Amino acid sequence: MNVVNLEAGFDSIEEYWSPKIAAELNGQHVKLARLKGEFEWHHHADADELFLVVEGRLVIELREEDDLRLEAGELVAIPAGVEHRPVADEEVQVLLFEPAGTENTGNVEESELSNEAAWL
Amino acid sequence: MNVVNLEAGFDSIEEYWSPKIAAELNGQHVKLARLKGEFEWHHHADADELFLVVEGRLVIELREEDDLRLEAGELVAIPAGVEHRPVADEEVQVLLFEPAGTENTGNVEESELSNEAAWL
Repeated sequence: MNVVNLEAGFDSIEEYWSPKIAAELNGQHVKLARLKGEFEWHHHADADELFLVVEGRLVIELREEDDLRLEAGELVAIPAGVEHRPVADEEVQVLLFEPAGTENTGNVEESELSNEAAWL
Repeated sequence: MNVVNLEAGFDSIEEYWSPKIAAELNGQHVKLARLKGEFEWHHHADADELFLVVEGRLVIELREEDDLRLEAGELVAIPAGVEHRPVADEEVQVLLFEPAGTENTGNVEESELSNEAAWL
């Protein structure tokens, strides 16, 4: 049982858009990521995905609905299949909760932003 | 897709030890709870449980290991079957991740602290 300090976790992450695993439970992963700039449009076929903004302001663009705008201390769950694009004008620190094995770019496999999450 | 503000969520919770559901994803619930005092010793037979301290300091006592001490911005996952007792000398605001339907007192069913989580 490993206590994870979020600030230390974020500080240890060097790359943007490269989530690291902080905890595993019930087949799900808690991941930390630093985001900056525009990500790719993508969806996760079978995985709902939760974003909790720890620091900064995150916009999640959606195809069919108004953009979601999250401040620090706000969370939202994006259901499986919903195409979305995270955009961070300035750096955002975010905690993600999603099934273990979920790829960051979802259905978009041939992206230079794709990577498999390692542990913190 | 509902953006949940943690501060507003905690402010809307009147009772201690009475988690409220903030989001559902992949069969899991994200819950918010205000804690103060000593909870009951309990375990969850089939459910790992994550505690993320948003405000305050939480001690999680364990039977076989040293107490866990979590400050704001720290998280830990308690594996299924591990008996534990949360203790909050002063008020603690905590975010929980656990399977939908997990009862707060786990195996201890006849407790006055037991309750079924409602949505925020």
